[in-house]
Amino acid sequence: MTVELISVGTELLLGNIVNTNANYLSVQCAQLGLSMYHQVTIGDNESRLIEAISTALKRSDIVILTGGLGPTTDDITKESVAKVLNRKIVMDEQSRERIQSYFERITANNSEIPKDIPAITDNNWKQALKIEGSIVVNNEYGTAPGYIVEDKDKIILLLPGPPSEMIPMFENNMLPYLRKLQDKVFVTKMVKVCGIGESTAETMILDLIEGQTNPTIAPYAKSGEVHFRITASADSHENAVELIDPIVDELYNRFGKNIYTTDNRTLEEVVVGLLITHNLTLVTAESCTGGLLSGRIVNVPGASDTFTEGFITYSNQAKIKYLNVKPETLRQYGAVSEQTAREMAVGAINASGCDVSIAVTGIAGPGGGSDDKPVGLVYLSCQVAKKVFVSKRHFKGGRKKIREQSVVAALDLVRRSILEEFG
Amino acid sequence: MTVELISVGTELLLGNIVNTNANYLSVQCAQLGLSMYHQVTIGDNESRLIEAISTALKRSDIVILTGGLGPTTDDITKESVAKVLNRKIVMDEQSRERIQSYFERITANNSEIPKDIPAITDNNWKQALKIEGSIVVNNEYGTAPGYIVEDKDKIILLLPGPPSEMIPMFENNMLPYLRKLQDKVFVTKMVKVCGIGESTAETMILDLIEGQTNPTIAPYAKSGEVHFRITASADSHENAVELIDPIVDELYNRFGKNIYTTDNRTLEEVVVGLLITHNLTLVTAESCTGGLLSGRIVNVPGASDTFTEGFITYSNQAKIKYLNVKPETLRQYGAVSEQTAREMAVGAINASGCDVSIAVTGIAGPGGGSDDKPVGLVYLSCQVAKKVFVSKRHFKGGRKKIREQSVVAALDLVRRSILEEFG
Repeated sequence: MTVELISVGTELLLGNIVNTNANYLSVQCAQLGLSMYHQVTIGDNESRLIEAISTALKRSDIVILTGGLGPTTDDITKESVAKVLNRKIVMDEQSRERIQSYFERITANNSEIPKDIPAITDNNWKQALKIEGSIVVNNEYGTAPGYIVEDKDKIILLLPGPPSEMIPMFENNMLPYLRKLQDKVFVTKMVKVCGIGESTAETMILDLIEGQTNPTIAPYAKSGEVHFRITASADSHENAVELIDPIVDELYNRFGKNIYTTDNRTLEEVVVGLLITHNLTLVTAESCTGGLLSGRIVNVPGASDTFTEGFITYSNQAKIKYLNVKPETLRQYGAVSEQTAREMAVGAINASGCDVSIAVTGIAGPGGGSDDKPVGLVYLSCQVAKKVFVSKRHFKGGRKKIREQSVVAALDLVRRSILEEFG
Repeated sequence: MTVELISVGTELLLGNIVNTNANYLSVQCAQLGLSMYHQVTIGDNESRLIEAISTALKRSDIVILTGGLGPTTDDITKESVAKVLNRKIVMDEQSRERIQSYFERITANNSEIPKDIPAITDNNWKQALKIEGSIVVNNEYGTAPGYIVEDKDKIILLLPGPPSEMIPMFENNMLPYLRKLQDKVFVTKMVKVCGIGESTAETMILDLIEGQTNPTIAPYAKSGEVHFRITASADSHENAVELIDPIVDELYNRFGKNIYTTDNRTLEEVVVGLLITHNLTLVTAESCTGGLLSGRIVNVPGASDTFTEGFITYSNQAKIKYLNVKPETLRQYGAVSEQTAREMAVGAINASGCDVSIAVTGIAGPGGGSDDKPVGLVYLSCQVAKKVFVSKRHFKGGRKKIREQSVVAALDLVRRSILEEFG
């Protein structure tokens, strides 16, 4: 079956946002085994959108539209699809009630809504309208519902534009729907590696990548990580898994402990999982990452069981005051040194009484570098039980990329240190 | 003039890479004042590419193609354009010489090229071919040249796919070429608002949006913020600015202090700027945002002049230990309450000696909510000088979205509190 994407929104044509939805949906459709030949981006203009939908329905079996489902007059996706299919727009009673209760809830709890503005503006009710005969898909993370429309042998899926609403709706509702249409089963497994560069990792398994057709192995680079996606197709889920398993075993032979997960968890989820398994509490001590490491950890549901406190100690003064780093150490070795990182890790344990600490100190740039200590130099230290681990890294890239890689390296050091201590 | 983008590459349709080229070129074209109504992505397939080029030439004045200029048989962009225009493909002598010397250079400098592989493979010569009558544009960062083709009243630009080659070629060659075609100047100004929801903000200026053609006003929603882009065209920069200024004044009349910038800075940049202007130091005390607020602040270059320390106090214990929140307060009102937020803000100032504090405590979910204190309830508190400001909010969405909105609300509270104290 063929599928076509239509991304709707003038903000895309003006370049105000990057179209990550198209990328996400491309990956999803490829995994489903759907053939995608066209992607189109159209602004909030009815005649052009109608033309794009008509063209797509002529050449593709499935048309997926994102964006243009919101409350404003610019949002015209639903209306345009209805016109192309020659269907009416009707009120969906359930959506109407959802919107009513949503607004009642936020109005009741928010003291800052100006009193002279009505809580529900007229245009909000637009989101309670549906294309006649369509299936309404609830939006768990926003007010605009999605829709599935079946029209003769064609299928049209309408999804909201914000990725935070679109992705869960696609995964929870549209994906199961599309899977039912397929006669082959596609199974994918993601093997995630950190601590090795992309080209090195790829070279280490080049023979596997080149030799395989089913399953296929595709590498994806992320900041400080490399992911390998293994995809197999077969007539049953079991048979597809049987094709994948020996490849995963071979990747373990080659990468060993550099593989941190094969079940699509994030690195921070793996770290939080390890901490909880071993009943350990964590404290952070961040200098150059200034809260980014902690922010990534708290995004894991359940993190609060293991991570309850942290220090942001950007200045030398703060390192001395909260982490008991010796002024002498800072004078002799500098804030970015193995010795300071080590004292930060030890000091964080002493101040907090936690079981595990992770400390990061480095030069994120653009200023502050020298020949001796260049921009990108980062020291990480982790104390587990009585043992203190230290790692020295040198990252490339701008301020933001150096910080991102530092966060990954810090999480990875916690992971390796716990594995070393507790197996 | 209208412009259309055609991104060529099966890797885009499979989702192996994100189409950042389309975003980059959208921004460039918008700044040039070109109207973009269509973007299309096509795989490495000749018949579909020919169809896309033909369609684009019918409806747009300028067609920009990226990708498919490389040496492999999959690279068919040049050949497809030639077929649509009914022109020959001919050898370009200068390109041939460039390729020859490029390969001689890298072979001389690279010890890693296997000796048994010829330095220039046959398909490399493909890159020395050009569309008859086209202008060849040298590629400073790769081997595939770009091309400018003028055909009757249409213009076709061909650019290589890798952004590291495409961007410098566009800026150095295509941009000056396109500028010469324009007789009008386009000026845009971004007015950024926070503390008001998208649909409310739009309703407040609907008459302006609907009444305007030059300048135009377009709203964009971001997590917790709304941005309005005002675009004017005129025969000079000055005249365009004269059209924009009264609109900005009118937006100030309607939104007042909810406007945090008109010069395209981020909210965190505005907050760091205010702190530096008033020579104030900042300390953070984060519960539910667990480092995300601090992480966003440190990403502003120069933030370290004003922000040197922070506390992540997820647990009650940490709130008591580091911020001196009274156990009695936590017992009586709970961790998510105005009283706790206030004591966190005051305690952070006392512990750190900083001038300004911002505290966040809330329920990010998915667990932890109740009828009385639902998921999404967040209290923020900011102390400036002797004054303590508190704000109660109720955000909608998942864990991540609630946190993002909390960060925006926290930054906004710092901004408003400083303005209130120091004007």
